Amino acid sequence: MDFQYSEKTQDLINQVRTFINNEVLPAEHTYHEQLQKSPWETPAVVHELKEKARAKGLWNLFLPKEHGEWSPGLSNLEYAPLAEEMGRNHFAAEVFNCSAPDTGNMEVLAKYGNEQQKEQWLKPLLDGKIRSAFAMTEPEVASSDATNIETSIKRDGDDYVINGRKFYISGAMRKSCEIMIVMGKTDPDNPNRHQQQSQILVPVNTPGVTVKRPMYVLGSPDAPEGHAEVIFDNVRVPAGNIILGEGRGFEIAQGRLGPGRIHHCMRLIGAAQRALELMCERANTRVAFGQPLIKQGSVREDIAKSYCEIEQARLMTLKAADHMDRYGNKEAKDLIAMIKIVAPSMAFRVVDRAIQIHGAVGLSQDTPLAGFFAYARTVRLADGPDQVHMSQLGRNLAKRFE
Amino acid sequence: MDFQYSEKTQDLINQVRTFINNEVLPAEHTYHEQLQKSPWETPAVVHELKEKARAKGLWNLFLPKEHGEWSPGLSNLEYAPLAEEMGRNHFAAEVFNCSAPDTGNMEVLAKYGNEQQKEQWLKPLLDGKIRSAFAMTEPEVASSDATNIETSIKRDGDDYVINGRKFYISGAMRKSCEIMIVMGKTDPDNPNRHQQQSQILVPVNTPGVTVKRPMYVLGSPDAPEGHAEVIFDNVRVPAGNIILGEGRGFEIAQGRLGPGRIHHCMRLIGAAQRALELMCERANTRVAFGQPLIKQGSVREDIAKSYCEIEQARLMTLKAADHMDRYGNKEAKDLIAMIKIVAPSMAFRVVDRAIQIHGAVGLSQDTPLAGFFAYARTVRLADGPDQVHMSQLGRNLAKRFE
Amino acid sequence: MDFQYSEKTQDLINQVRTFINNEVLPAEHTYHEQLQKSPWETPAVVHELKEKARAKGLWNLFLPKEHGEWSPGLSNLEYAPLAEEMGRNHFAAEVFNCSAPDTGNMEVLAKYGNEQQKEQWLKPLLDGKIRSAFAMTEPEVASSDATNIETSIKRDGDDYVINGRKFYISGAMRKSCEIMIVMGKTDPDNPNRHQQQSQILVPVNTPGVTVKRPMYVLGSPDAPEGHAEVIFDNVRVPAGNIILGEGRGFEIAQGRLGPGRIHHCMRLIGAAQRALELMCERANTRVAFGQPLIKQGSVREDIAKSYCEIEQARLMTLKAADHMDRYGNKEAKDLIAMIKIVAPSMAFRVVDRAIQIHGAVGLSQDTPLAGFFAYARTVRLADGPDQVHMSQLGRNLAKRFE
Amino acid sequence: MDFQYSEKTQDLINQVRTFINNEVLPAEHTYHEQLQKSPWETPAVVHELKEKARAKGLWNLFLPKEHGEWSPGLSNLEYAPLAEEMGRNHFAAEVFNCSAPDTGNMEVLAKYGNEQQKEQWLKPLLDGKIRSAFAMTEPEVASSDATNIETSIKRDGDDYVINGRKFYISGAMRKSCEIMIVMGKTDPDNPNRHQQQSQILVPVNTPGVTVKRPMYVLGSPDAPEGHAEVIFDNVRVPAGNIILGEGRGFEIAQGRLGPGRIHHCMRLIGAAQRALELMCERANTRVAFGQPLIKQGSVREDIAKSYCEIEQARLMTLKAADHMDRYGNKEAKDLIAMIKIVAPSMAFRVVDRAIQIHGAVGLSQDTPLAGFFAYARTVRLADGPDQVHMSQLGRNLAKRFE
Repeated sequence: MDFQYSEKTQDLINQVRTFINNEVLPAEHTYHEQLQKSPWETPAVVHELKEKARAKGLWNLFLPKEHGEWSPGLSNLEYAPLAEEMGRNHFAAEVFNCSAPDTGNMEVLAKYGNEQQKEQWLKPLLDGKIRSAFAMTEPEVASSDATNIETSIKRDGDDYVINGRKFYISGAMRKSCEIMIVMGKTDPDNPNRHQQQSQILVPVNTPGVTVKRPMYVLGSPDAPEGHAEVIFDNVRVPAGNIILGEGRGFEIAQGRLGPGRIHHCMRLIGAAQRALELMCERANTRVAFGQPLIKQGSVREDIAKSYCEIEQARLMTLKAADHMDRYGNKEAKDLIAMIKIVAPSMAFRVVDRAIQIHGAVGLSQDTPLAGFFAYARTVRLADGPDQVHMSQLGRNLAKRFE
Repeated sequence: MDFQYSEKTQDLINQVRTFINNEVLPAEHTYHEQLQKSPWETPAVVHELKEKARAKGLWNLFLPKEHGEWSPGLSNLEYAPLAEEMGRNHFAAEVFNCSAPDTGNMEVLAKYGNEQQKEQWLKPLLDGKIRSAFAMTEPEVASSDATNIETSIKRDGDDYVINGRKFYISGAMRKSCEIMIVMGKTDPDNPNRHQQQSQILVPVNTPGVTVKRPMYVLGSPDAPEGHAEVIFDNVRVPAGNIILGEGRGFEIAQGRLGPGRIHHCMRLIGAAQRALELMCERANTRVAFGQPLIKQGSVREDIAKSYCEIEQARLMTLKAADHMDRYGNKEAKDLIAMIKIVAPSMAFRVVDRAIQIHGAVGLSQDTPLAGFFAYARTVRLADGPDQVHMSQLGRNLAKRFE
Repeated sequence: MDFQYSEKTQDLINQVRTFINNEVLPAEHTYHEQLQKSPWETPAVVHELKEKARAKGLWNLFLPKEHGEWSPGLSNLEYAPLAEEMGRNHFAAEVFNCSAPDTGNMEVLAKYGNEQQKEQWLKPLLDGKIRSAFAMTEPEVASSDATNIETSIKRDGDDYVINGRKFYISGAMRKSCEIMIVMGKTDPDNPNRHQQQSQILVPVNTPGVTVKRPMYVLGSPDAPEGHAEVIFDNVRVPAGNIILGEGRGFEIAQGRLGPGRIHHCMRLIGAAQRALELMCERANTRVAFGQPLIKQGSVREDIAKSYCEIEQARLMTLKAADHMDRYGNKEAKDLIAMIKIVAPSMAFRVVDRAIQIHGAVGLSQDTPLAGFFAYARTVRLADGPDQVHMSQLGRNLAKRFE
Repeated sequence: MDFQYSEKTQDLINQVRTFINNEVLPAEHTYHEQLQKSPWETPAVVHELKEKARAKGLWNLFLPKEHGEWSPGLSNLEYAPLAEEMGRNHFAAEVFNCSAPDTGNMEVLAKYGNEQQKEQWLKPLLDGKIRSAFAMTEPEVASSDATNIETSIKRDGDDYVINGRKFYISGAMRKSCEIMIVMGKTDPDNPNRHQQQSQILVPVNTPGVTVKRPMYVLGSPDAPEGHAEVIFDNVRVPAGNIILGEGRGFEIAQGRLGPGRIHHCMRLIGAAQRALELMCERANTRVAFGQPLIKQGSVREDIAKSYCEIEQARLMTLKAADHMDRYGNKEAKDLIAMIKIVAPSMAFRVVDRAIQIHGAVGLSQDTPLAGFFAYARTVRLADGPDQVHMSQLGRNLAKRFE
């Protein structure tokens, strides 16, 4: 048992942190200016930063070492603290080509894609040339219960024909989003509820695909990625676009959950950590009733509580990553549920306290807090609300004492 | 002691509720469509609804009976449940000419304005012809500690000259906003910290007034009212624009707090009540894992807890209103602090639960929940964060046992 | 709507408060001394105080006016604030002959007892000559689900024969406890689950009744009442001891719930209010790090939060009492569930904060806080845990929006 | 970074767990029977178990390896999980001669005692022949602010004379308690507030020492150790009884804090873990409304939440132990504050949930829950309330961002 980062990890943390501090944070203003002019376009400054990051070898860090040549060779435990660093800024993950949903899509393609799929889609994604989306969530179906997805994928000759309505498809508003992995049912009558689904590659420019509107998140369109409502109206793609084969959709979806949770949770921990630091800075400098806020007991308690909660969530998420590395996603199932239960609501609370200490400016566009707040609030219900995960975890734990 | 609304109140509640159900809610879609075309303009449908409401006598209901002819003659206790009804919808209060910050501004003018000020500004406000703003909050000063305001108001001949920077000036983005009441210091060296401030009327189109940008609230510009950053650069207005006289600014500010808190809290209670009802509807109809959500214990508990919290906050806010009517704002001071501490955070929790039960759509523009969420979050720190009010209330309570 | 006590109520509050301050509180030390010598005997000082209270007409105040001559004629709304006063001290309720479980038993006998039952048991109870117990809870049955009670009551000639095991039978350890109302099943096979139970009078000295041991509450035997484990081994009582008739047990049990909840909740509110006052006194006088605790923000916040929570619970409990008076227990069902959900956990939190501010002495026998803490913790699960009430209330609320 | 116990640690955990399961748990009933007969005497069964544990080498495990021959050679990180195992049972720590306050006293004597002190007191303590107490807490002084202690220790010839009043002196009620380490002031006027105090050895049978009464903890005397009020009335001991020298009392007190916190927190984590397991067993077997409790969502959530909280607190406490081993107590200061803030209140919440799921029996003497509850509640305010630690930690953290 050892609670210290390895030298290798510490060195990578330093590299990523330095890059973010020196390159990314100073570009924040430019980013927002460029964004305002063209909300659904990746700001040009991001492309410049991506070149720089790639030149330094800080590229595709998320991709596990099992993927050979394409991977920088990090384990989950080694990548986790880097995700934390990236979480400190709204667009840093993208700069290192480590942002969702591309990360999950790339991993799926690397793991399950055939050679043609890899060539056509994985390569440009790994190169950071295009962006992608994962079209799973449907307005009429509880996302915690993916077996009920209603979008249909029907074989018709050499093609599949897709019909359905999806929403909150993250990244699909972005102009550079060229490819979607769509989850639907190829075999809705299969008695095995977990073999009805398939995943299929759908280029965004396929006729019948309509990116209808951005779904807002707490009043914000969340540009440039956006979370689109997408209509699939008799969308026809070649049969070869299916991933891994018919009926494997649920299995693929499960496979992407584990690493995705680690990434989300660590980024949220980074966001919470930055919120804590902003809270400290604000408390040191802001004066009310004749003294800096840090003199107030309740402000100190908020800082202390936040730090305790962040550190605990961090340790548990790192343990989950370690477990995944050692025993695989399945064995780490409980821990992956636990971090989903703990980290987003922790980050939400910490950011909420930071906003409270900032007053009105904490709600504004002048700090990253509002963005962190929306992110944490979203993840509290993404992949199913925390309550569902608690319920399943509780049931599993109790079984051990039957 | 009697926990039932009087017949008069119950009748008014019914009228307001009926009007909202029959006229306002069906107009929501049109409202948002019109808003999207011109975000800082009051949607035309609001003007139509205002005419209708006024024709039914549902107009300026907030204005206490002490203001004679201009007032419909309701006490705070009688108006409070009407504010709750209005809180169920984002723009209903405006329809009845009962929306902030005009309500506070009208009351200030009715109470403290001279005849000319009333003629020029109060009348068109009471007529719903123009809108107004209250420019108090400054980026560099804790809003819980208003004595420190830095904007200067200097006498120069027959004029006052105003210099300063304000932000989160609600309503100032709106094109129909014609008049601002500005809080600043006329006598910054007065040893009595509560006599340094004055309030002065500043027409928005006065040279030197720049409405610089909308401050966002959790990623949303909150159109059509908006919360502007406003710069006052050598803004010159006639000396007669001062309200009540130099050095009375703090006193005027205090006076508007009491009723404003009742209004905000009751609207938040209305928002929470509607969120609860939406939660119930969702829980009845949404199916996950083969059964409606309402079968899940945690969903039921969320509904039950929310109802208990809403009902308690409602009773306390009504008691505060009753106390204000009987003994005046000063005697009701503790209760007014208590509702500020309780109601916004209660509404925040309830809306948060409603969002969680709705899943992604709860964050979207397709329900009123995201708007309620931002409103509740904002009021948790408006007029000073809850912590400041708790600290003062705690000190006052302890004094009784010295 | 009116949030002020009537003159009559205010006058009674003053009388009860004065009596407690002048007579009961000064006797606390004697009470504990006498108790230590003989833990299961009502301390002699209580008998003296009972005489005095009765002489002043402060006697059986709980008994609703519908019970004519025996009742002092108060409504639930009028009695509720008196119960609050009594809750400020561990044994004050007993002094006014208003303590559980006798109050519930007396009301049951007054409402449902026949003439002989009234003569034999109700009269001496109303006279404060004897004490009683209500034997319902069983170790093997969830007390939230009374339909499953396992104790059997079998007709045998002119007698009933009772067999079963009960525990946490409050008051049954007390030497003066002479009579128990026992809940059991006379007709376990009745298809109507609510007609299987009956309630029957069992004198404690009946052969076969064994008061086996005191069940502790958080390490304390809770003398002098105690909460006994009681064994019924072929206990034979005359058939005339049945109350209201076979199969009416559930109905009788339901009937006692409403007023009992009001009493418990108001006493807990009184306990919380006293805890708050002790908190204030401690905060004013205790010095740490060179200043009185009240200078610390977190102490002030604890005081403020506690007061807000107490006041809200008080208003809702009074509203529940008002509703019961106006529309009966059944119509007040939701409110009665709501106060059960709110008041005990509120009191628990408030007392917990008071203990924290007191430090070690807050856990000790030198303040009433430890007793309040155990009381509040107990009621959080008595009559079924809060969760069960939330679940039922949530279900009921949602039904209104089907 | 590695989240797995070393083989050595895992092996020790297994030995301790096996011993507790096979020897300690089966003796619980005997323990309580013997205790009831003579509450302030260590039950005979404990002595037997101590012999067995010592024979197996499971003895004095807490004593860090730096103390050479007397120590079994474990680091804090190695001992921590053993303390967790001991925390699962009320008296297991004593069986391994690892129970407070002896552990702290032994460490103080090993570290700071002179040869004679070691011979006379450390040896019999390490042999488990006698018990001891640490007399620091005073009723009139906030225990979070030890500099204010009022007990006086005055040099008089070859003796020191001690006067003062202490309370909540854990272990001092026990008949086998022979020695106390007393904290008092030898130099109350020293301008350095941290050099006024000294610690001195006082045999319990010294004339002038009166063990006045047990202070209760939530209604329980907490036998056999008890928490005594102790009066020191002109107590005279030889000058050689001073530890380390005059003015070193505060320094010694600080030194014992770190390991003590680890021990307390890990025992509380063990208690919480056992409470969780009891919760699971109860939820599996208890039936209400026709199904086992585990079918209820709120029960599952309580189990899941508890597990997440336990695991997080465990990881952070282990990290604190690791830090102490690597960098010393001083460097680990923040982490030691953090576990004090987190672990006791976590254990309190978990045990509270376990009680709720157990219903009445959860409050009783028939499960260990009530004991765990009192333990956790006590540690939330021992060594100063959590609030004080949060306040100091918050201030320290903010300083890093000045």
